[in-house]
Amino acid sequence: MAAMALFLNIAAPSSASYPVLHKTHLSPPFLLPLRHHPTASTRSATKISASLIDPDGGRLVELFVRESEKDSKLKQALGLPQIRLSKIDLQWVHVLSEGWASPLKGFMRESEFLQTLHFNSLRLNDGSVVNMSVTIVLAIDDVQKGRIGSSTSVALVDQNDNLVAILNDIEIYKHNKEERIARTWGTTAHGLPYVEEAITSAGNWLIGGDLEVIEPIKYNDGLDRFRLSPSQLRDEFARRNADAVFAFQLRNPVHNGHALLMTDTRRRLLEMGYTNPVLLLHPLGGYTKADDVPLSWRMKQHEKVLEDGVLDPETTKVLSMAPGLERLNILPFKVAAYDNTQGKMAFFDPSRPRDFLFISGTKMRTLAKNGVNPPDGFMCPGGWKVLVDYYNSLAPSDNGRVPEPVPA
Amino acid sequence: MAAMALFLNIAAPSSASYPVLHKTHLSPPFLLPLRHHPTASTRSATKISASLIDPDGGRLVELFVRESEKDSKLKQALGLPQIRLSKIDLQWVHVLSEGWASPLKGFMRESEFLQTLHFNSLRLNDGSVVNMSVTIVLAIDDVQKGRIGSSTSVALVDQNDNLVAILNDIEIYKHNKEERIARTWGTTAHGLPYVEEAITSAGNWLIGGDLEVIEPIKYNDGLDRFRLSPSQLRDEFARRNADAVFAFQLRNPVHNGHALLMTDTRRRLLEMGYTNPVLLLHPLGGYTKADDVPLSWRMKQHEKVLEDGVLDPETTKVLSMAPGLERLNILPFKVAAYDNTQGKMAFFDPSRPRDFLFISGTKMRTLAKNGVNPPDGFMCPGGWKVLVDYYNSLAPSDNGRVPEPVPA
Repeated sequence: MAAMALFLNIAAPSSASYPVLHKTHLSPPFLLPLRHHPTASTRSATKISASLIDPDGGRLVELFVRESEKDSKLKQALGLPQIRLSKIDLQWVHVLSEGWASPLKGFMRESEFLQTLHFNSLRLNDGSVVNMSVTIVLAIDDVQKGRIGSSTSVALVDQNDNLVAILNDIEIYKHNKEERIARTWGTTAHGLPYVEEAITSAGNWLIGGDLEVIEPIKYNDGLDRFRLSPSQLRDEFARRNADAVFAFQLRNPVHNGHALLMTDTRRRLLEMGYTNPVLLLHPLGGYTKADDVPLSWRMKQHEKVLEDGVLDPETTKVLSMAPGLERLNILPFKVAAYDNTQGKMAFFDPSRPRDFLFISGTKMRTLAKNGVNPPDGFMCPGGWKVLVDYYNSLAPSDNGRVPEPVPA
Repeated sequence: MAAMALFLNIAAPSSASYPVLHKTHLSPPFLLPLRHHPTASTRSATKISASLIDPDGGRLVELFVRESEKDSKLKQALGLPQIRLSKIDLQWVHVLSEGWASPLKGFMRESEFLQTLHFNSLRLNDGSVVNMSVTIVLAIDDVQKGRIGSSTSVALVDQNDNLVAILNDIEIYKHNKEERIARTWGTTAHGLPYVEEAITSAGNWLIGGDLEVIEPIKYNDGLDRFRLSPSQLRDEFARRNADAVFAFQLRNPVHNGHALLMTDTRRRLLEMGYTNPVLLLHPLGGYTKADDVPLSWRMKQHEKVLEDGVLDPETTKVLSMAPGLERLNILPFKVAAYDNTQGKMAFFDPSRPRDFLFISGTKMRTLAKNGVNPPDGFMCPGGWKVLVDYYNSLAPSDNGRVPEPVPA
């Protein structure tokens, strides 16, 4: 059953600057329409020949060196200046190498960096525009810059000095940190974990270039089996004959309000004429709030929810950020809340507001932390137990403070 | 001769967030290509049938009420809640009313505000995208919001309570000041005059809507004759049979380095096959640096430069910000500096850097303030005299401080 749930963990800051024009209590599901979808005038709903929309830039970028070239690349790297990657840098290599940030072929050069900050998008050589709202950059300090000198390539190594990738045709430019922070988050307030960890303390230069990645990035944390690449996900969608893919992203355990929204979206897609819409359930990795449930526990909880049949595992997957937002259909939906009269999660009815109980993520976590059960019908018992187990697993800290946020 | 120089004064912050990918010592001239320009394959340079490129959105927006409707609008306004415009608000009504911000039909609603902050552009209903890098908004406070109540229109009045415009189909939304500042300027540092004057101290709400403007905005400062509308400029370009329009924007007096750049650009346009390129010389109005020469004096200086024949008045105009940057050709140029060996402004030759003297705007102003002449050939004597006259006209302040910045 677990194999049905496919998870991804990327380092994108959880508060990254996606402009959300329609704010709701819950993240909206994104619908990724497949290329050929039924319309009344063109075809009947029973004759759909579907394929996924193209990746941004036309083709999926994958940046791995061929098996036959590995030895020569390892040899070449020995003669290059080295940059040691931080944990977050390595996660970005992961993102870039599998094509999550297509059409980027490596860490951003200055033109891409500035376009991302100013336009949240990139203009490609053919004049087309793709969404790009988060800068994907590699910072170096003055000493590293000095060591690189006039070399046009550098070797990127992990914390154990193992070669991860070669960065070619490099461009070094100013890391204007305040501008980067202000334009990405719309604030320069202190306390943003990604800013403090990956920007403020980083070097004053950025180095862009084209990546050649030696091996797929693995984390060896027991979760690698959930981390499918875009290419693997595309194969899986094709295998399942999905004619629409819709995504739900969340940083909390899944409760029955989420499940209601997802199930209802699937119903609406079927009504629209799609025959096999597949859900991609995406738990946010990377930085989350300090008191959030860690990714590994949320994944256990997600698996339990799938096991308990709240979501249909045959139509459920888990995914990451999707570039190319323009080609997404946003399906607006009503807010879900706990309806005391029905004893279950339902769409909020503004004509009888007193009947509804809003249980925020914070409230849910507080209940679980204190061993208090939520109202019946809020979450399947198996899923709730995972949450309670997580809080029981925490060693009581002597000052009662919540743990510091860490990239999951 | 003065009638040849056409000036505009708008309230756009001088440090507004235009991403400048190629930084130079001087503002780059923008070339506004006309619709039909010669290419080797399609036509000879002598058979150009030219027209200006379309305004953003397809047609030039003008927001004035018809003469025949004025009385009924004045009567209607009597029954509406009133908002008193600040000096800067009124300048934005000027910008909007004449179509400088086409396709905007009034102060931005939230969707336009957010698109401007996040994308520096607006997506129109037909899917096309236009450049929009500065938010054009009207702030109100809690009391004003309360007075508006459920009214769908408001009357905008000047400092003397004269009706300026009616704002229809209004939308009131949150004025997220920190985000606006951070995303527009890329910094939240204190001391930006426009921020302090027009944002920080402004109300916590923004009100968008469609404008109906009663009369063209006039400033009665002796400079109105220089303020041509886009429509008037277009007529003037047509009258002169311009087949290319190139613009030069500056906030300093024009010196011979500027003149060299402008003359050289014209030469290159003629080489490209244009037969009648017209220059739009645009002195920045609005906020400039505290120690800058005020607009009125710069305009006197510009007129003198035209009189002295440094620039050809027949091919010179003065313009404001151009929306639709995508359709502009950017002609890169070399840096101009004072060449001691030639005794004149010339393009910097990196092979003999010691021969060149860079005279910055600050240095130029300091020389004029202290009555020291610049090197011969830096500026025509008549233009320089205007500058010196300006500094002589300043009453010595008792603490020696430069005057505070004010919108010109």
